[in-house]
Amino acid sequence: MTNWRDIDLKAKQWVSEAGEIIRQSFKTTLTISTKSNPNDLVTNMDKDIETFFIKKINETFPDHKVLGEEGQGDQIDSTEGVIWIIDPIDGTMNFVHQQRNFAISVGVYGDGVGQIGLIYDIVHDELYHAFKGKGAFMNDLKLPMLEEVELSEAVIGLNATWVMENHRIDHKLLTPLVKAVRGTRSYGSAALEFAYVASGRIDAYLTMRLSPWDFAAGLVILDEVGAGTSTVEGESIHILSPSSVLVGRKNIHTKILKNYLNV
Amino acid sequence: MTNWRDIDLKAKQWVSEAGEIIRQSFKTTLTISTKSNPNDLVTNMDKDIETFFIKKINETFPDHKVLGEEGQGDQIDSTEGVIWIIDPIDGTMNFVHQQRNFAISVGVYGDGVGQIGLIYDIVHDELYHAFKGKGAFMNDLKLPMLEEVELSEAVIGLNATWVMENHRIDHKLLTPLVKAVRGTRSYGSAALEFAYVASGRIDAYLTMRLSPWDFAAGLVILDEVGAGTSTVEGESIHILSPSSVLVGRKNIHTKILKNYLNV
Repeated sequence: MTNWRDIDLKAKQWVSEAGEIIRQSFKTTLTISTKSNPNDLVTNMDKDIETFFIKKINETFPDHKVLGEEGQGDQIDSTEGVIWIIDPIDGTMNFVHQQRNFAISVGVYGDGVGQIGLIYDIVHDELYHAFKGKGAFMNDLKLPMLEEVELSEAVIGLNATWVMENHRIDHKLLTPLVKAVRGTRSYGSAALEFAYVASGRIDAYLTMRLSPWDFAAGLVILDEVGAGTSTVEGESIHILSPSSVLVGRKNIHTKILKNYLNV
Repeated sequence: MTNWRDIDLKAKQWVSEAGEIIRQSFKTTLTISTKSNPNDLVTNMDKDIETFFIKKINETFPDHKVLGEEGQGDQIDSTEGVIWIIDPIDGTMNFVHQQRNFAISVGVYGDGVGQIGLIYDIVHDELYHAFKGKGAFMNDLKLPMLEEVELSEAVIGLNATWVMENHRIDHKLLTPLVKAVRGTRSYGSAALEFAYVASGRIDAYLTMRLSPWDFAAGLVILDEVGAGTSTVEGESIHILSPSSVLVGRKNIHTKILKNYLNV
């Protein structure tokens, strides 16, 4: 039988170690990135961190599979077994240009069910973590269940891309939403936007094009604070497929689906 | 003759003290009321910090005038003399909901010319500061002059509001821009977005509706790193009037004005 507690301990340890590697790399990366193409350097860091995770997982849990953004993991076409879904640096652009607003994202799923979610905001040393059925935390602080707020009071994570003509959603559905809410934000890191919804920093997050490593950890964390999570069509998010995502306080999630997305 | 060095020292001291008051306040409950505009949250802290500055300024520099967001300063209809332009907490909504992504913004102008700009990101303990002709700094680090980047590599601070139908700009001008750049961000604090342009975290920032206290400090800082700054019509920003704002690396600023805003 899968020992999820052990997996959780290891996952946290590795995330912490990976965070330290990235933190250390900062000084070097910053120095070098002024001289050559910063994007190349960061691609290396992305890959290095993914390799770090894959090596640790393969050594410790040889029967687990890994799905990672950098594509060095396994070919996976079934949710069977234990699958680690990893974004070594979510928000790479921010990592390069800002040295903030990026995170490590690690979700661990058993037969398709999210068991562990870890999002590590390295610069702020904030680890958002959840273990299925045991609640969600930011470091040692238990995150309270999300309460209702009025839509007119809500701040929503929503990029400008989705309220102008695009080929993924009818932007005319979203413009009345933007007018109805208090404000919108866009941080350029899906993992962090999930973490911000979980911790009440924003009230919902909507985006049209995420990959499994962008949402795997976030969905586990959001489940533990009672958030609403679905595609923009109101369907369950498939954990191995690219997907649109709408997450938020339950009443906000419901209202957006019903009153704006016409689900 | 005005002793700008003395003013600069005092301004930095007071910003630091105000930052400490705000930091301490995180431990106590905030009393929140709404201003006339539903999008403006105001806390007692906003008012207290503005009062703090006004008191200090009046005591130390009785002939200086103060223009503050909370409206407790002077009635000002001329740029003559020394004017302090203050936003005690820029990004109040973030202050309330996130306890990050807000800043104190203080600009000091002499006869309409920006002499001192201070933007203090309290949570990150990052003070962006500039003294006319002496360069801009983030804490002790001198900010380099902004270099050119390709528009296709640029990340722009731009809220969703301005790429959908609105009564301040023809959104059809901006949608091709969003498609041309690498990405957009929106942080909900104009002062910080100015600071991010100054430090190269974003490459430009465009917004249609700012007040003097939102841009007074930022413009001084941006001048010192050679940024382009104007209204979206390409005109100088008037320091005492509400204004649209386009700021960015000089080549990006020029390109946006010329190729997208048709100036």
